[in-house]
Amino acid sequence: MSNSDPLVIFTPSGKRGHVAPGTTVLQAARQLGVDLDSVCGGRGICSKCQVQPSFGEHAKHGIHADPGALSDVNTVEERYDRVRGLKPGRRLGCQACIQGDVVLDVPPESQVHKQVVRKAATTRVIEMDPATRAVYVEVEEADMHAPTGDWERLKTALFEQWQVDPVTLPQTLPIPMLIAMQAALIKGGYKITVALNTARTGVIKLVGVWPGFTEPSLYGLAVDLGSTTIAAHLTDLTTGEVKASGGVMNPQIRFGEDLMSRVSYAMMNDTGAADMTAAVREAMNTLAQELAREAGIEVTDIFEAVFVMNPVMHHLLLGLDPTPLGQSPFALATNSAMDLSAAELGLSFAPAAQVYILPLIAGHVGADAAAVALSEAPQKRDPLTLIVDVGTNAEIILGNKTRVLACSSPTGPAFEGAQISSGQRAAPGAIERLEIDPTTKEPRFKVIGCDLWSDDPEFTTQTAVTGVSGICGSGIIEAVAEMRMTGIVDANGLIGSAEATGTARARPEGRTHSYLIHDGSEDGGPVISVTQGDIRAIQLAKSALYAGARLLMDEFGSDKVERVVLAGAFGAHISPKHAMVLGMIPDCPLEHVTSAGNAAGTGAQIALLNVASRREVEALVHEITKIETAIEPRFQEHFVAANAIPHATDPFTGLRAVVSLPEPSFNSGSSGGTGRRRRR
Amino acid sequence: MSNSDPLVIFTPSGKRGHVAPGTTVLQAARQLGVDLDSVCGGRGICSKCQVQPSFGEHAKHGIHADPGALSDVNTVEERYDRVRGLKPGRRLGCQACIQGDVVLDVPPESQVHKQVVRKAATTRVIEMDPATRAVYVEVEEADMHAPTGDWERLKTALFEQWQVDPVTLPQTLPIPMLIAMQAALIKGGYKITVALNTARTGVIKLVGVWPGFTEPSLYGLAVDLGSTTIAAHLTDLTTGEVKASGGVMNPQIRFGEDLMSRVSYAMMNDTGAADMTAAVREAMNTLAQELAREAGIEVTDIFEAVFVMNPVMHHLLLGLDPTPLGQSPFALATNSAMDLSAAELGLSFAPAAQVYILPLIAGHVGADAAAVALSEAPQKRDPLTLIVDVGTNAEIILGNKTRVLACSSPTGPAFEGAQISSGQRAAPGAIERLEIDPTTKEPRFKVIGCDLWSDDPEFTTQTAVTGVSGICGSGIIEAVAEMRMTGIVDANGLIGSAEATGTARARPEGRTHSYLIHDGSEDGGPVISVTQGDIRAIQLAKSALYAGARLLMDEFGSDKVERVVLAGAFGAHISPKHAMVLGMIPDCPLEHVTSAGNAAGTGAQIALLNVASRREVEALVHEITKIETAIEPRFQEHFVAANAIPHATDPFTGLRAVVSLPEPSFNSGSSGGTGRRRRR
Repeated sequence: MSNSDPLVIFTPSGKRGHVAPGTTVLQAARQLGVDLDSVCGGRGICSKCQVQPSFGEHAKHGIHADPGALSDVNTVEERYDRVRGLKPGRRLGCQACIQGDVVLDVPPESQVHKQVVRKAATTRVIEMDPATRAVYVEVEEADMHAPTGDWERLKTALFEQWQVDPVTLPQTLPIPMLIAMQAALIKGGYKITVALNTARTGVIKLVGVWPGFTEPSLYGLAVDLGSTTIAAHLTDLTTGEVKASGGVMNPQIRFGEDLMSRVSYAMMNDTGAADMTAAVREAMNTLAQELAREAGIEVTDIFEAVFVMNPVMHHLLLGLDPTPLGQSPFALATNSAMDLSAAELGLSFAPAAQVYILPLIAGHVGADAAAVALSEAPQKRDPLTLIVDVGTNAEIILGNKTRVLACSSPTGPAFEGAQISSGQRAAPGAIERLEIDPTTKEPRFKVIGCDLWSDDPEFTTQTAVTGVSGICGSGIIEAVAEMRMTGIVDANGLIGSAEATGTARARPEGRTHSYLIHDGSEDGGPVISVTQGDIRAIQLAKSALYAGARLLMDEFGSDKVERVVLAGAFGAHISPKHAMVLGMIPDCPLEHVTSAGNAAGTGAQIALLNVASRREVEALVHEITKIETAIEPRFQEHFVAANAIPHATDPFTGLRAVVSLPEPSFNSGSSGGTGRRRRR
Repeated sequence: MSNSDPLVIFTPSGKRGHVAPGTTVLQAARQLGVDLDSVCGGRGICSKCQVQPSFGEHAKHGIHADPGALSDVNTVEERYDRVRGLKPGRRLGCQACIQGDVVLDVPPESQVHKQVVRKAATTRVIEMDPATRAVYVEVEEADMHAPTGDWERLKTALFEQWQVDPVTLPQTLPIPMLIAMQAALIKGGYKITVALNTARTGVIKLVGVWPGFTEPSLYGLAVDLGSTTIAAHLTDLTTGEVKASGGVMNPQIRFGEDLMSRVSYAMMNDTGAADMTAAVREAMNTLAQELAREAGIEVTDIFEAVFVMNPVMHHLLLGLDPTPLGQSPFALATNSAMDLSAAELGLSFAPAAQVYILPLIAGHVGADAAAVALSEAPQKRDPLTLIVDVGTNAEIILGNKTRVLACSSPTGPAFEGAQISSGQRAAPGAIERLEIDPTTKEPRFKVIGCDLWSDDPEFTTQTAVTGVSGICGSGIIEAVAEMRMTGIVDANGLIGSAEATGTARARPEGRTHSYLIHDGSEDGGPVISVTQGDIRAIQLAKSALYAGARLLMDEFGSDKVERVVLAGAFGAHISPKHAMVLGMIPDCPLEHVTSAGNAAGTGAQIALLNVASRREVEALVHEITKIETAIEPRFQEHFVAANAIPHATDPFTGLRAVVSLPEPSFNSGSSGGTGRRRRR
């Protein structure tokens, strides 16, 4: 275009250029690469291309916009305004023609690639570019003289009107979709709205069809399929808005608490794997129904789901045999990302709903870890970042722009409150925070469901319903760390006697000691204390975690990390300071230890809303160096050294600069030493 | 390779070239583009690569082959010979190395692209290149250090060992196939045999998997799905051998005899189309079971089926709504060739069996006509060829190397013996041949099930069981033509009186006459005659056929055709001379009128055995000019002119040179004239 042509400036993008007089705003936007939506293809039906012109002097842009810079409102716009209403000053981009210099604002609702801010511990911006979208298309009518099929004419129309080529029928129901298309074409007078899904291979599938112009409800589910909990977000695929979130217990728990017991169940029972597959699929359907009800939509409005999960959950959802995952070499049936139909997984969504499953990293490191990597994107950062997703197995990722490594480490369930004498799941009444006074060695704590510390006069009243029932994972970490910080536990993990520690709460228990936190026996409640066995369980778990991280650092060739990200629902509740005192994670400035919340769930949501992110995570997983802790001789070495609190050989200089760690020694000879390594 | 390297000559291809000493025969064949089979990939297991070396002086090729030109028999060959046996002199191409000049014969069983001769009226050679084939592959075992899935390692192995890339999972059961693959890899020690199917899009699917090396049974069905009869050939996809052939009645007949009555049934009954779909699928399964039993295989050995059928049968097999095909503009839901899974069509073959459906030409001209075009290949010939597939609707194809045209014409069921007073289906006892003595005007005939003419003394004895029950389609054509040739019927189609014709067999019947062929009333059998109404019915049918052909000739710009091919099971029994006397087909030297037998079935068989032919028929159908007879004004004109026998205006000079056609006129004023046009 020449400089004498009208200059158009789009805000907020700032994109500008000259266009021929008479160019529609929509055409101008396309010419200049401006993100302006349109569902009806410029026919004045959908109003997705609305813009807000600004007339007058624009000193900033150096132009004066005359009110005549846009063509007058035409009959199409008038009718639209009359029937459906336009906000004052708004114009339909497909109708308004540019006649002079003008500034046009594209409101967020007119942008295809609008940005959606995820509320998470770390604020994450997702650019909307979902795999599933709806378009309106006018199909040529059947013509005896040039006989072609309805389907072939629809494909031609999609190519000509939307540059979509080639479109295919969905894999599991090509014929039902042809039948629906036939019916919609007849009912809609050869004008229809279709939903298209772009698979990772670039194949575009017809997944929905409606007569005439309509704005169909297109919803997506982002699912974090955990061994314990199945969590999902139900999201509007057009706006990116989360309409409902929720979770259910994974019903496979009745076949085995942890992964390996489920694999064993599959190994020992002929229909074991099939039973677990059926159970998890049923739970998925129930969860989808509940979320749909909450959002006020139908499950058949769900056109897409994204799943992230560990390898055993992956194989059990798909109906693959999980038993090879129970023993070396932990052979996965497939590790690639998958595009499947929801129907193949027994999921009752829209008939042609599609499912995307993130790639697995290795036999122990699943699509959930891949989702964490997608969400946290260590490969895009300069500082060396350690990401730990703490659960029964910890997934550990280490990397920066140069390289990313991953492994898993068998921490066991101690961090979740299991195998702890007073341990319990995180539930109302469970101690989740704990402090010990360095002088008096008296503890105070908070329980889930109450914001007060236990030394508050109101505490007993406010916790009357729940009581104080036990210690959850974050509580036991803080308890052990505080005991170490106040000299009740020594570096070897031994609890000292009342004499040695100066508190009567240190009470003998057989040949060892325990530390009393809360005696509820007067009110019929439990006596809650930390025993020597509890400390040992925590030591085993944290040693495994640390050793895994350390192994990755060795492989990376670095002695220290610059950032630590605690991921997972549990990670969100861990106090960085206490985790570091315990030696769960390597020494690192405390302000650089953050929580990412449910990063796996966030990764699933990103993959749901942005199709390019699927290519990104697939490429990333391909590039990640996988380390197998089970066969790495140095793992054992690191594990033993990590048994001490915080560590036998790593000085933790940074930590000691901000936290005082007394160094008593309670070793009476017989009960000290290292823990046995256990693999779960 | 240099000229000092050994010269190897393969027969029968005659391909020759120098190869480096030590090259295996299999490698040499690949280097020189010689078709030498191998299923095990050169591991000395499958013996598909056997060759027969010829030593000594080869004057023809100008070389002397020394017995040392091939390496000595090695332990692999020795073991193979011991265990499974090699014919004398044969060598395994993957083991024998070339050390000097040599001539090697590739026996037919060692060729992948062996040629299969179809026994048909026209002998047709099909080059074997089926879409489904089996290969043996050795997959890398799972490795913890480089974790990838079994499926990904299988894909890598298929690429490295067979240059197959990329392989996908079958559309309807990706997960069951992954499960089967997992199990086979474990059982086969990571050595497996797989069946691969190449779709028309080039996508290669894994459709079968077996542990270890095996030669799986791979069978295919070529199906001609007619409105009346479903006919199928069960063929070995490795050898091309037809193992069983057969047919069943199309059970949809109970919903309507002809296509339009079935479309009406679908229109009038909510579950009409679905009921007909279920019926035809069930019949297909029954037929497949019968053929499998006859061939001594399991239906699960059927990995592929090819279907050809008219548009209504196509939509009803697929479960699409056929009602748009009942009225203008005869809109097809889809007209392209399709790759589907057998399971989608409710067909119980191998779980991942694939189905290929030939493309439809137009709303009235189906995949059966496309198959005829594939089989007869008019586009590859210089002479202008007219192909008519005679049935309730006639499909008509006209063309040569320059251009191909097609239409369908509503002949109605008269050619099949329906709507004829003594008409019946072709069955034992039906008159199928007829001659009238030009002098005595006495008829003689043959019935189905007996080789004697009716004037043979043994005839009555030999037909005692069946009797003489009626006239089938070919019989009525010969009867009317003979009546015309002997002056019993005039050019307008009027039967003369006894006086006018000189035979008492011409008997008054109301205001018209009939011609008595056989009076079985003494033995309680029927009186068989040709009535004036029968002549009218045949005139309507033959006029429609001729008018369709003529319309294509107009469009082609030619007054005559050089070849006529009569296709269809019925076409195989029509006498060319009688058909031409009747004026069913245009004038053409009689020796150039041939029958192609079931050309549609042959086309299906070609598409089954040669994957390239699918591209060929798709391209051909795309190029064919479709003519819609229903809306072409000249059709009516041609139809009226064609009512006369043989024709009112076309002189049929060629015919008259070899056949004498008397020209009486029996027009008594009231009963002559043209037939009404009827559309069925």
